[in-house]
Amino acid sequence: MKVHIILGSKSDMPVAEKAQKILDDFKVDYELTIASAHRTPEYVQKIVTQSTADLFIGVAGLAAALPGTIAAHTTKPVIGIPVSGKVNLDAILSIIQMPPGVPVAAVGLDRGDNAALLAIEILALSNKTLKKKMEDYRKHMKEEIIASNKGA
Amino acid sequence: MKVHIILGSKSDMPVAEKAQKILDDFKVDYELTIASAHRTPEYVQKIVTQSTADLFIGVAGLAAALPGTIAAHTTKPVIGIPVSGKVNLDAILSIIQMPPGVPVAAVGLDRGDNAALLAIEILALSNKTLKKKMEDYRKHMKEEIIASNKGA
Amino acid sequence: MKVHIILGSKSDMPVAEKAQKILDDFKVDYELTIASAHRTPEYVQKIVTQSTADLFIGVAGLAAALPGTIAAHTTKPVIGIPVSGKVNLDAILSIIQMPPGVPVAAVGLDRGDNAALLAIEILALSNKTLKKKMEDYRKHMKEEIIASNKGA
Amino acid sequence: MKVHIILGSKSDMPVAEKAQKILDDFKVDYELTIASAHRTPEYVQKIVTQSTADLFIGVAGLAAALPGTIAAHTTKPVIGIPVSGKVNLDAILSIIQMPPGVPVAAVGLDRGDNAALLAIEILALSNKTLKKKMEDYRKHMKEEIIASNKGA
Amino acid sequence: MKVHIILGSKSDMPVAEKAQKILDDFKVDYELTIASAHRTPEYVQKIVTQSTADLFIGVAGLAAALPGTIAAHTTKPVIGIPVSGKVNLDAILSIIQMPPGVPVAAVGLDRGDNAALLAIEILALSNKTLKKKMEDYRKHMKEEIIASNKGA
Amino acid sequence: MKVHIILGSKSDMPVAEKAQKILDDFKVDYELTIASAHRTPEYVQKIVTQSTADLFIGVAGLAAALPGTIAAHTTKPVIGIPVSGKVNLDAILSIIQMPPGVPVAAVGLDRGDNAALLAIEILALSNKTLKKKMEDYRKHMKEEIIASNKGA
Amino acid sequence: MKVHIILGSKSDMPVAEKAQKILDDFKVDYELTIASAHRTPEYVQKIVTQSTADLFIGVAGLAAALPGTIAAHTTKPVIGIPVSGKVNLDAILSIIQMPPGVPVAAVGLDRGDNAALLAIEILALSNKTLKKKMEDYRKHMKEEIIASNKGA
Amino acid sequence: MKVHIILGSKSDMPVAEKAQKILDDFKVDYELTIASAHRTPEYVQKIVTQSTADLFIGVAGLAAALPGTIAAHTTKPVIGIPVSGKVNLDAILSIIQMPPGVPVAAVGLDRGDNAALLAIEILALSNKTLKKKMEDYRKHMKEEIIASNKGA
Repeated sequence: MKVHIILGSKSDMPVAEKAQKILDDFKVDYELTIASAHRTPEYVQKIVTQSTADLFIGVAGLAAALPGTIAAHTTKPVIGIPVSGKVNLDAILSIIQMPPGVPVAAVGLDRGDNAALLAIEILALSNKTLKKKMEDYRKHMKEEIIASNKGA
Repeated sequence: MKVHIILGSKSDMPVAEKAQKILDDFKVDYELTIASAHRTPEYVQKIVTQSTADLFIGVAGLAAALPGTIAAHTTKPVIGIPVSGKVNLDAILSIIQMPPGVPVAAVGLDRGDNAALLAIEILALSNKTLKKKMEDYRKHMKEEIIASNKGA
Repeated sequence: MKVHIILGSKSDMPVAEKAQKILDDFKVDYELTIASAHRTPEYVQKIVTQSTADLFIGVAGLAAALPGTIAAHTTKPVIGIPVSGKVNLDAILSIIQMPPGVPVAAVGLDRGDNAALLAIEILALSNKTLKKKMEDYRKHMKEEIIASNKGA
Repeated sequence: MKVHIILGSKSDMPVAEKAQKILDDFKVDYELTIASAHRTPEYVQKIVTQSTADLFIGVAGLAAALPGTIAAHTTKPVIGIPVSGKVNLDAILSIIQMPPGVPVAAVGLDRGDNAALLAIEILALSNKTLKKKMEDYRKHMKEEIIASNKGA
Repeated sequence: MKVHIILGSKSDMPVAEKAQKILDDFKVDYELTIASAHRTPEYVQKIVTQSTADLFIGVAGLAAALPGTIAAHTTKPVIGIPVSGKVNLDAILSIIQMPPGVPVAAVGLDRGDNAALLAIEILALSNKTLKKKMEDYRKHMKEEIIASNKGA
Repeated sequence: MKVHIILGSKSDMPVAEKAQKILDDFKVDYELTIASAHRTPEYVQKIVTQSTADLFIGVAGLAAALPGTIAAHTTKPVIGIPVSGKVNLDAILSIIQMPPGVPVAAVGLDRGDNAALLAIEILALSNKTLKKKMEDYRKHMKEEIIASNKGA
Repeated sequence: MKVHIILGSKSDMPVAEKAQKILDDFKVDYELTIASAHRTPEYVQKIVTQSTADLFIGVAGLAAALPGTIAAHTTKPVIGIPVSGKVNLDAILSIIQMPPGVPVAAVGLDRGDNAALLAIEILALSNKTLKKKMEDYRKHMKEEIIASNKGA
Repeated sequence: MKVHIILGSKSDMPVAEKAQKILDDFKVDYELTIASAHRTPEYVQKIVTQSTADLFIGVAGLAAALPGTIAAHTTKPVIGIPVSGKVNLDAILSIIQMPPGVPVAAVGLDRGDNAALLAIEILALSNKTLKKKMEDYRKHMKEEIIASNKGA
């Protein structure tokens, strides 16, 4: 079971790191590649078609074509993370507004954490240990929020 | 293997029907419930926690809280479809901009088709027949587009 | 007579504090709870349904579902404050664009002060002392602005 | 107990009618006046300051100053309804983005129904019959949605 | 010949100062008053109706009702300057999207300079000295830009 | 005393006609020319520099450069009307966001009427008859709105 | 000398036809292919890399990745036309906001005509006949606009 | 073979410098002039009509009329760069949304680099050395991205 994170640019690393942290916490294996839909299209194709990962996370800003380009080369699930910049609506709309036939699962602006959690939810469909960990994660998150009101 | 489609309102049916058509074509079992995050919150909770489905598709417009509310009650994957209206950015942003910890997989405005295709891609991770069908679907789609240039 | 302020996240405290300051000035009792619509939905339901407050103020950013979720669990008035972030229109539209049947009273971005003043205007409908204080507050505000032109 | 609906223009009547319908259903007394913040400012002032209503609903499109102008002349609660047009964000932002000190309770675009429901929730704080009716209204709304799944 | 600058808030002073600088340079008399459309509506009315100025400049941010409120109380020309903030489209749209019958002359975000220049262009219609100064100003501006290319 | 209306395209005539109607009602002389900033820049320059009008009204949609181009060739006041289309924010922002030094007085989307009324307010500064007419116009407008409540 | 028009979908034909009309008028040879960046990525690559055209025009709506994908496979100039839909800003921003290194020449929403004219301007750099035709086209356009004022 | 860069204002220099750097790297001759569409329209006309350059790059922010104004005076290709500011959509839409007949090739916000690369792609159509350099540039860019994954 493996996740493949692909970044459109080195500058997207802080967003990818949020995903890496979650995947590390859940002990989910992942690979990370920098590959640009516009600057290295054949490389994206090669990486995606040769990848042994179960699903992909594409991270990109601006006219964020990367998640859609990954999705164009695979029928595995593709999660897209729009990266913030001067406009923000550019990356959000470029990732979410995919045409019919080739879906991308878009998460929020800079939400590397949620992309990883979504990936784990998907992988957990056929992995009970991961399912249990995710339920514990949610439970812990709930308890922490509720506990934060005790000392307030 | 089952998908549970939940609609915030009857008026979202045309978008849900696009999903139903795809699921029917792929012979994937599904259930459809109308349940509003704002008008029937306990009902959404009951449906989601009791559902035997593997994943959910939430369909909603305006301040489209339904997909996020579904996600709040499950660790199964949740796909959110923003429904078009007078503003459009309202449903898109309400669904995609989820806070850290509770992911929703947002697809494009009115993209019932892509929500179903994404659901199938996820289910196909542990179902080779479905995987094969999806690859055929993509192949057919490609051939059709390429063929359309022959007669042109 | 009591106001219940609910925050979606600790990071929304600066906005909540503007509300607290006004409520303190008007000597209106209030309770403050951190509870997330997406991370602790049952806790929000429990807090809202058990609260002895007359009305609620929900503070949230991003896909700001909290005010709407509060409103889904009560017929008491709910005031929603969108919290600023990288997009801003996300929180504004997620709070104001409620579907028919379940209203939220949306105030401006980060306007903790106005949420509290609106709460007081509502409570003042059946409380003459509070009504008098609010009229004095407005009067003082007017005088201050007019006086600021004297020395100019 | 009375609500005063003020419209910026005759063309806003369809939105006001949604509010009237709800108020009629709840047997809440109301008055309706057409008065423009920009074309009849003194008339707005006169109506607002002489009104015997408990609260106001202001309905306006474009640079929708009416709800804010009403709020400027009273410390009673003011609900603002943005009316849709060619831009939509104009009316939404003109009504919700009030400066500190003078709150307006903004509801969604063209949401005459929700403005009336919010008004009733406010009035119900000191009226048990109205409170009961509102709870019945919500209950009926819930039952209707749940029932709609039976025949489906 | 006089211009009356009205600010919605002290915090708008930096924008007003750009207008003052231009008016000082052109030796056009002006008055400056802080008066809020929402917090001091009667004061705005009093100032506007008693002013001996030929035209008004209204400076405001957020739901920037001030220029429209000034225009509601006079048939003299009113220039409106939207002040920047967290949203920006709020002030721009609140000022430019005036309903039929009561015009406001909107200038760009934070453009105190252009508001003053527009005021002077208007006053210059019946003042040849001012007309000459404005033509010199433009000429000087052109020469400066062209000269900047000499040393480049 | 004359107004010169310049249209970027024949398709902008319906907006110009709203201005013509007002100018006819006020018996203000005007000239109307179709001249495009992008397609006939020298013609715009010729018309503007040779015009005997006191001020200009520029009507344009899309990247609505016409009002700014007129302003670039004259120090007479220039009023700009953004014309609605598929985007709307394009024409609004292209007209209102003028750089420092060359002001345009922007009115609302498709607001030919307000452009004419603003022109008349400006011309009325040195014309008492026109001033009187404008005051009567406003008075009539007020009376009509107030009267509309009598029969309601 | 040839232009290659690539459409993301058959539904973009009306926009492509505007380009075809101009190219026909200028007697510039062109080829037209339907090929989707998301549904037929290898086909886009094959078409682009094998094309004998001098430059490309990519036509696409929604998350309009096609022009950028064409640009990723060639160093020939690529012109991108955003196609209108329910959001419009999606296609505009997806085409214009290309990352550094791989440029696309974006034209306006649905502007098939301007895409063709830009293509001709580029080809005319090394073709005097085409240059002459373009100058005549502009001249004719100017004369037509100026003439339209004669009969007015 | 020469490119002419025209800036609307000295403050746009950082964006122009990105273009200069690329043109220097490719040893493409260029000229740089500061000339404002609104403040020096005749100067823009003179520069454009007398320029010996093959194509133009116009750099401007706000109501960014400069690229369109350049295009109005020439049939040579014109590339437009929107410069970022407080609104961003203003410059993007002012440059991309050109009316039919006069095209501008818009590149992304602050994308001086891409404007230069697009210019070189256009010039390379009739210059094999430049074509070769551009292919090397792309190749180098690809290799650099792929290599960046080696040490990771």
